[in-house]
Amino acid sequence: MSQKVKVAVLGASGYSGIELLRLLLRHPHATLVAVTSRTLAGKALSDEFPRFRQVGVSDTLTFTAPDVASLKQSGAEIAFLALPHGVSVEYAKPLLEAGIKVIDLSADFRLRSAEVYKEFYAHEHPAPELLDEAVYALPEIRAEEIKKARLIACPGCYPTSILLPLIPLLKAGLLAEDPLAVSSMSGASGAGRNASIPLLFCEVQNSLRSYSVPQHRHLSEVGQELSLAAGMPVKLSFVPHLVPVYAGICTTTFATPKEGVTVEQVEAVLKEAYADQPFIRLLGKNQSPDTKHVMGTNFVDIGWALDARAGRLILMSAEDNIGKGASSQAIQNMNLVCGFDPAAGLMSV
Amino acid sequence: MSQKVKVAVLGASGYSGIELLRLLLRHPHATLVAVTSRTLAGKALSDEFPRFRQVGVSDTLTFTAPDVASLKQSGAEIAFLALPHGVSVEYAKPLLEAGIKVIDLSADFRLRSAEVYKEFYAHEHPAPELLDEAVYALPEIRAEEIKKARLIACPGCYPTSILLPLIPLLKAGLLAEDPLAVSSMSGASGAGRNASIPLLFCEVQNSLRSYSVPQHRHLSEVGQELSLAAGMPVKLSFVPHLVPVYAGICTTTFATPKEGVTVEQVEAVLKEAYADQPFIRLLGKNQSPDTKHVMGTNFVDIGWALDARAGRLILMSAEDNIGKGASSQAIQNMNLVCGFDPAAGLMSV
Amino acid sequence: MSQKVKVAVLGASGYSGIELLRLLLRHPHATLVAVTSRTLAGKALSDEFPRFRQVGVSDTLTFTAPDVASLKQSGAEIAFLALPHGVSVEYAKPLLEAGIKVIDLSADFRLRSAEVYKEFYAHEHPAPELLDEAVYALPEIRAEEIKKARLIACPGCYPTSILLPLIPLLKAGLLAEDPLAVSSMSGASGAGRNASIPLLFCEVQNSLRSYSVPQHRHLSEVGQELSLAAGMPVKLSFVPHLVPVYAGICTTTFATPKEGVTVEQVEAVLKEAYADQPFIRLLGKNQSPDTKHVMGTNFVDIGWALDARAGRLILMSAEDNIGKGASSQAIQNMNLVCGFDPAAGLMSV
Amino acid sequence: MSQKVKVAVLGASGYSGIELLRLLLRHPHATLVAVTSRTLAGKALSDEFPRFRQVGVSDTLTFTAPDVASLKQSGAEIAFLALPHGVSVEYAKPLLEAGIKVIDLSADFRLRSAEVYKEFYAHEHPAPELLDEAVYALPEIRAEEIKKARLIACPGCYPTSILLPLIPLLKAGLLAEDPLAVSSMSGASGAGRNASIPLLFCEVQNSLRSYSVPQHRHLSEVGQELSLAAGMPVKLSFVPHLVPVYAGICTTTFATPKEGVTVEQVEAVLKEAYADQPFIRLLGKNQSPDTKHVMGTNFVDIGWALDARAGRLILMSAEDNIGKGASSQAIQNMNLVCGFDPAAGLMSV
Repeated sequence: MSQKVKVAVLGASGYSGIELLRLLLRHPHATLVAVTSRTLAGKALSDEFPRFRQVGVSDTLTFTAPDVASLKQSGAEIAFLALPHGVSVEYAKPLLEAGIKVIDLSADFRLRSAEVYKEFYAHEHPAPELLDEAVYALPEIRAEEIKKARLIACPGCYPTSILLPLIPLLKAGLLAEDPLAVSSMSGASGAGRNASIPLLFCEVQNSLRSYSVPQHRHLSEVGQELSLAAGMPVKLSFVPHLVPVYAGICTTTFATPKEGVTVEQVEAVLKEAYADQPFIRLLGKNQSPDTKHVMGTNFVDIGWALDARAGRLILMSAEDNIGKGASSQAIQNMNLVCGFDPAAGLMSV
Repeated sequence: MSQKVKVAVLGASGYSGIELLRLLLRHPHATLVAVTSRTLAGKALSDEFPRFRQVGVSDTLTFTAPDVASLKQSGAEIAFLALPHGVSVEYAKPLLEAGIKVIDLSADFRLRSAEVYKEFYAHEHPAPELLDEAVYALPEIRAEEIKKARLIACPGCYPTSILLPLIPLLKAGLLAEDPLAVSSMSGASGAGRNASIPLLFCEVQNSLRSYSVPQHRHLSEVGQELSLAAGMPVKLSFVPHLVPVYAGICTTTFATPKEGVTVEQVEAVLKEAYADQPFIRLLGKNQSPDTKHVMGTNFVDIGWALDARAGRLILMSAEDNIGKGASSQAIQNMNLVCGFDPAAGLMSV
Repeated sequence: MSQKVKVAVLGASGYSGIELLRLLLRHPHATLVAVTSRTLAGKALSDEFPRFRQVGVSDTLTFTAPDVASLKQSGAEIAFLALPHGVSVEYAKPLLEAGIKVIDLSADFRLRSAEVYKEFYAHEHPAPELLDEAVYALPEIRAEEIKKARLIACPGCYPTSILLPLIPLLKAGLLAEDPLAVSSMSGASGAGRNASIPLLFCEVQNSLRSYSVPQHRHLSEVGQELSLAAGMPVKLSFVPHLVPVYAGICTTTFATPKEGVTVEQVEAVLKEAYADQPFIRLLGKNQSPDTKHVMGTNFVDIGWALDARAGRLILMSAEDNIGKGASSQAIQNMNLVCGFDPAAGLMSV
Repeated sequence: MSQKVKVAVLGASGYSGIELLRLLLRHPHATLVAVTSRTLAGKALSDEFPRFRQVGVSDTLTFTAPDVASLKQSGAEIAFLALPHGVSVEYAKPLLEAGIKVIDLSADFRLRSAEVYKEFYAHEHPAPELLDEAVYALPEIRAEEIKKARLIACPGCYPTSILLPLIPLLKAGLLAEDPLAVSSMSGASGAGRNASIPLLFCEVQNSLRSYSVPQHRHLSEVGQELSLAAGMPVKLSFVPHLVPVYAGICTTTFATPKEGVTVEQVEAVLKEAYADQPFIRLLGKNQSPDTKHVMGTNFVDIGWALDARAGRLILMSAEDNIGKGASSQAIQNMNLVCGFDPAAGLMSV
């Protein structure tokens, strides 16, 4: 461990990119050797992001254009892609060919099926030959595969909050086939750091609204992973909402338990599934998670309740959308890939 | 109409009470003659609420203790009860006996059944003999009864947003018997103006969380009214969430349409039901309402979507929880009771 | 008064423009006959701003490109210019020539001196011949001139909050020649409705910062008006701050009173100056105004304190920057120009 | 350094206390051995503050009543007092007698003069004999004294932001005797975690207001320290404002430079004074600091501008009021007292 891993962040000027920088600048086993941004190329990191002045190596870094040859030359062993969907895929292949492992935060490699990709993203997948190799990297579910992977597809922010409570219950066969209903709320950082009137402070501050109804893109990866866990197709309705916080996702899922399933069984299954997971916190029956307790962290807090009157199981989860929903989960995956302590650089609040 | 109706507000120091004052101070056909507050008795209205200084009659008003004899003497013809649940009921009977009509914003007279009341409010109803007379006063649904009523029970904030999209669809028989799943978000004013650590700015600002899971009290009145509309028992799961805005409710409902029901049928039913209603705005298919467009108003904005993949109808509504969800709806009811234009004093943004 | 004045709003898609629409749609003596926006031309008003659906005449209005001939044809008698600085001036002259009175919310006609304009706005004034005619329209100070004016230059948002407490004290000769120090905070709507990363919700929400230090453009009009009031040049330092609220300006001014001046004298001067002004609320000694009490209104709340230890008079004022700081003040000026009750359409909270 | 210092936090349930816990739970050289709270005694830390579940030693800690004998028994070598003013003083003496060093975050030991204390705090100082020993612990100014101290009085939040830009300039003799004018804005955490209606989310969210005008208590310590730096009495007016953010202080100071002083001289003095200080970031001329860049950190960002028109020097600073303004500065002081790297446990963003 005396040797630190050298890492690069591509697309470092968005909210996920900034969070990656924040976490990597203090990671005990990683050194940031390159940060790229097409719009900021040539500018000093700490001029653009004054919060990083005098922090770690930040004052020595300058944004460069994303160029694989230069990244190779910088010594980068791992590249984080905090790029828009459709852009990551352009860099992944040459980076892998240059021997640099790729941890992608976009949606480009999350789906196993190029057809489903086309249905949800409205164009052909540009590199379908990589879909088999990519690992859908939910570390609590798929740690062994992640450790061996070259191409890591980090789950989406909403999917992380939806999948973690559901997968163990589906695997244990506790849920009926009834379609799931999922309602999530997300902070505005989930919409990205783009100059756009609907994302202005004055437009968002007093606003509560759903969007992308009825077919948000994240439905595709959630459906894929739930169906894998259940061993059969799982249907769900999903409604995301934008709310006036910087970050945080709060997800409420309505599921139909199989006849006779008790809340104790639900609790037992979750406890067994996540007994050794440092970043899953099981709050207990009828306990509501609160995003303020997970802000800036890699935790997912989970509660559950049985609504006997309506015959529904209610699952509740909270995470930081740019933490566990994006950047800190990416670093958790890096820790697995590199053989570090899974919690290295992440166990703070 | 040359004569203005004289009104009193009991419990004028809470958020619903303040909103009643704001609306009544500028109502063209009403004059505020008394404001009561046990904690503020003896204090001048505009000292306690500087926003009302130099507005209408506000500088002439002083808070008094709630006392029916004095209210009678003030000439009040209508009393708004913006009191906590369980307190309104103490005043309703003597006010009615004194010949003063009652518009109650609490939950005390919303349920037809004293048994259901006991199940949800955990004690015997103190005046069950009044439950038959009270009108559950959703003005878009029950205008004729409201016009003749002495005792008006204004619907709860969440119920208003849940019931308005659903009632026409249930009446038209478009929905299957599957339990409904309802997820709502509310601003902090819904929790009241009480000195309490969980409601502090620093506790709420970066917080998204559900609460009262799985059995919020509002389930009782929603179940009652949906079942009346459907002509059969309707089951639902309901999860409310607290989010960091002053006011606003955004509700998302997942329903199962009967086989073959189309989105055009849904739209036609809603349009017919609300064709002449000034405060219902039907946004259209796949259109998400936004609370910022209804803030400070009596509007409910409604959108809908058919999720064919999962076989679910998604209903979306937005209102101001202290407006249409409480105080402006109370005034809409007053307008009906007094024979005024239903929109009098309410048509602003 | 049976006849309503016909008005047009140019630049109706910004925050001041939206606030003008909100106020004009319910004004008892005005009818909105045209709304212009270069970017939204051809679109229905209530599609772009769903909050205005079903409100007054809004559903009949469509944005047009700003064109003087069409405006004339619409019957507009008064045009509100809610345009960027430098754009208003292009429309003012042809509108006046077409016989349409102009109420300009930009900075284009606020300065008497084309030289000072050039110093602060970095280019020659394009229509210096109109500067003499334009009235710097602070209605509490200059009502008689406003009544007769064709070209109304509404004061800036910061200047309104700075000038109103100071002008009576300067006129009364209570202040020493020491330069004033003024610190103001403004909500984000003051920065306009422009797609820009620094104005995103995620950039503004947890941010407190000054800007345009040391020479904000508003210094020019404040200096002009204070010097006029004092009858001699008045110097001041001014630091504006951006804070995470939608609207509101809170201004704190440090002045040096002449030797021996008492807090009672200050109070007496302010009370006499504003005795008959419906929108000035004098809070009293050591009383801090709060922007939440003036939101959505045309009020300015004013407090004052004498800091005997440091020999400073502290003046505090609060207003809504898009209300009294822009749009409602513009309507107050329209009321004067048209001979309406000065508070018509404005006396709400 | 193999041995960690054992620390206790008294008053751990307020915002400064929570921030101390957050920082100490991850401090590389400190172990939290006791947390006290009169209201929470007997409760598990991670039940009350779910954000700390599964973080460091938090799951092993239970709140106790503050009792010096038990604290001694816990092995605590240093006690942080995050107690209200007037309460800290009760614990400081017995803790010192028990051989436990005291780092006090309250105002109890900040003043050298019991008379000034009485003037500003309205009662006799209860332990004037300790005032001589206590060190006013601004680590950038007084590191050598802090290293040797037993009783550390951490500066107030506003004073830290006011003093750091001014002290070097006063020491260098660049400022004239004119009274200073200081305007600060603070987030709501500065008002404490007290159940109080004015601190509710709904009261604070849309509110900008000054308070404690004209004589805030912090004036006393600021005056003391500025006068010490100048070698002569320094006068100032100070107006604090409450704004709707969780944390952050933004301070703007208007000073009169001596005749002929240039902005380059100001910059040179600040650069020399803070050349080796890891937590002072000098932004440059006309650069405005932004609280979002210092949130959760121990940094103070400083900008300056010369307003030649008015003859004023404008100083601007930003800090996290519960970080550098309270808890992280307290830990910076602990690092000095214990001989650790001054930045240990603090260099993150």
